[in-house]
Amino acid sequence: MRAVDLIRKKRDGGEHTREEIDYLVSSYTHGDIPDYQMSAWLMAVWIRGLSPGETAALTEAMLHSGEVLDHSYLPMKKVDKHSTGGVGDKTSLILAPIVAAGGLAVPMIAGRGLGHTGGTLDKLEAIPGFNTSLSLADFRRVLRECGMGLIGQTAEIAPADKKIYALRDATSTVENIGLICASIMSKKLAEGIDALVLDVKTGSGAFMAKQEDAVRLAEVMVDTARRTGKKAVALLTDMGQPLGRMAGHSNEVIEAIDVLRGKGPDDVRNLSVELSAWMFYLGERTKSVEDGRFLAEEMIASGKALEKFRQCIRLQGGDEHIVDDTCLLPMAKSQVDVTSSISGYITATHCRDFGIALAMLGGGRGKKEDRIDHGVGLEFHKRIGDRVQAGEKLVTIQYNSEARLAEAKNLVAASFEIGDVAPQAPPLISRIIGG
Amino acid sequence: MRAVDLIRKKRDGGEHTREEIDYLVSSYTHGDIPDYQMSAWLMAVWIRGLSPGETAALTEAMLHSGEVLDHSYLPMKKVDKHSTGGVGDKTSLILAPIVAAGGLAVPMIAGRGLGHTGGTLDKLEAIPGFNTSLSLADFRRVLRECGMGLIGQTAEIAPADKKIYALRDATSTVENIGLICASIMSKKLAEGIDALVLDVKTGSGAFMAKQEDAVRLAEVMVDTARRTGKKAVALLTDMGQPLGRMAGHSNEVIEAIDVLRGKGPDDVRNLSVELSAWMFYLGERTKSVEDGRFLAEEMIASGKALEKFRQCIRLQGGDEHIVDDTCLLPMAKSQVDVTSSISGYITATHCRDFGIALAMLGGGRGKKEDRIDHGVGLEFHKRIGDRVQAGEKLVTIQYNSEARLAEAKNLVAASFEIGDVAPQAPPLISRIIGG
Repeated sequence: MRAVDLIRKKRDGGEHTREEIDYLVSSYTHGDIPDYQMSAWLMAVWIRGLSPGETAALTEAMLHSGEVLDHSYLPMKKVDKHSTGGVGDKTSLILAPIVAAGGLAVPMIAGRGLGHTGGTLDKLEAIPGFNTSLSLADFRRVLRECGMGLIGQTAEIAPADKKIYALRDATSTVENIGLICASIMSKKLAEGIDALVLDVKTGSGAFMAKQEDAVRLAEVMVDTARRTGKKAVALLTDMGQPLGRMAGHSNEVIEAIDVLRGKGPDDVRNLSVELSAWMFYLGERTKSVEDGRFLAEEMIASGKALEKFRQCIRLQGGDEHIVDDTCLLPMAKSQVDVTSSISGYITATHCRDFGIALAMLGGGRGKKEDRIDHGVGLEFHKRIGDRVQAGEKLVTIQYNSEARLAEAKNLVAASFEIGDVAPQAPPLISRIIGG
Repeated sequence: MRAVDLIRKKRDGGEHTREEIDYLVSSYTHGDIPDYQMSAWLMAVWIRGLSPGETAALTEAMLHSGEVLDHSYLPMKKVDKHSTGGVGDKTSLILAPIVAAGGLAVPMIAGRGLGHTGGTLDKLEAIPGFNTSLSLADFRRVLRECGMGLIGQTAEIAPADKKIYALRDATSTVENIGLICASIMSKKLAEGIDALVLDVKTGSGAFMAKQEDAVRLAEVMVDTARRTGKKAVALLTDMGQPLGRMAGHSNEVIEAIDVLRGKGPDDVRNLSVELSAWMFYLGERTKSVEDGRFLAEEMIASGKALEKFRQCIRLQGGDEHIVDDTCLLPMAKSQVDVTSSISGYITATHCRDFGIALAMLGGGRGKKEDRIDHGVGLEFHKRIGDRVQAGEKLVTIQYNSEARLAEAKNLVAASFEIGDVAPQAPPLISRIIGG
């Protein structure tokens, strides 16, 4: 087999065999295929596309470029959730304790924020002492003791993805359904799970703003999971506005604890319960999604989920007292309100811009190396469909530095669309794919 | 400007500005854009295509990546011909002396054979002592003395083409009209000529086997030449069978001398006269192509063209006596006939395979570094439309080594299609583009 022939095949719209994709991924990972051949192939793939079979083969080849974790020492089923990312999405911090408290294992390998989105690892690191870089041995110990654990990607997991992603980033070959699917799924399948629930975001704050693209990505990911023998479902959820009232790292931990106490905003609570319900069902803990919903509600009402979160924080080296006193979390020193200049109804938001404004304040990364200020945040006072009066608060900005404050404030103010007619509030979950 | 944005633009089917193409070519040539970005861009170009304007801009950017020769010390117009390559095409050796004898200058920078095609430089090097690697100063001296000169590409000429071509070869991005045009034309325009005649081959022995592709390439090359202020015309000519009776290096020098003596096969003679006629016309030596034809015939009939060839050989260090005694050329030691197993009419040939058989015998290159045996060759006894009897000779193979003789013989034998009905012989020149 020669790379130049495989490039030609994809260039001409052909479909690769599993062996061809194995050869490409394995040779590239070992340095036997140079960057310039891989990037030509990636561009051909971007334009010609990958079939469902090719996508599954690419996912598996990338998965097997590294270590696949084995959690067979745990007697229960292993499940996880993946979100394609958005603004204010703290559901992982809520559903992992719910599902672990309910009797399944959640061995979550989470990501960091980049661009306008937040990352679960960064949010956890707002908790003083919380260690997201456990060794695999310590990760297993935590999982054995409390049924959940949250760490970052290690060098052993899907090294092909890391190398290919860097090349895609430099060659404008990122936004392709098959390549995105393989990148996400190769890492998730390396977790050694039995089932996966996918939260695919659409709308102005999502990577896939268009509904049809999000649907295609969801379908391909569910199909790929099943081809590799895993149960999977995808929920298409709204990211046309931030999830919940709070964005920012400490802020989101606080809101997650609120939900685990049976409080918190409806949208965060409902989505967390719904995702947990699917995890219970696919993990064969309940006979139906309906039963899963009841179990999730029960884990919250009984306080078991919150205790699970406390236990996990302790086992991963964090200060468990933040659960009772969230003032122990790093908080911004100052705050300022953004008010509305006109009266009317909130009809839409430029949700991505809230994430960008947060990053400007130090609460996000431009480059991988950037440090995050966990204390800065945004508190949203109005949602789509709400009535607002001129001069009324839209958002409270919590900040530490005035360096880019004016810029962030202007961006936040410009991110609300206000009209005369109350709009239909968009459904939180618009579609379930593979259910 | 950033390469990643330009890759994205072409990926999405956009059209580059001249500045964008200048940036890409110049940055890549200077090593400021890495191979992996250039190859992604080349694949996007291969699939999305280049507009006529982009093709001209690319050609000029590659042209100006190196030196453009200036022959203003010569009082007459400077003209040249380029052929897209085939089997048995020795017209350069014939038309350069005809046109120089007729009063124009022919500063030809010629190529080597690769794959199934022969190269003019290799054919000239069959002549003992002939030096195709003259310094530019010596090249000018030869041109001043005899009005013609034939050398290979130097490092100063279109270095961007050399670097880009190597990358295209390794990434399956060779066969694209715009890229082919830019590669050919950037080198030809660097010759410092006023006009160019293009011989674009079609049929089984051509790189562009399909007539429609050849027509498009011809149109784009003529358009590009004109956008850069040069006169140009393209003749679409048949390569469905070898040109002339002889293939192989010494063989083709012999046949060229035959034509210059007023003998030789009709097809070689007619094509050489026709190409010369266009060179005379575009170089403003004659008022019409018709007049150019008469002048070309006169240069042959008077012996002036042959004397010009002799003079050029002497000035470039070659043994001019080969003109009178072709036995001084390196010849193969042995020969064997390939005969027909059936009777009928020659209806077609797999012309490319004759070139491949010749390369097997040592008369061509698989890799750039391979040495060539100038003595081996093929003599064709039958042409399309000819009647052949079972047992009658089709081809005489002249060889030095038996290493791959059987393989070459089988390939040659299998390269004739023989049927019961005499076919229409294809026209040698099917179309004139830009005339």
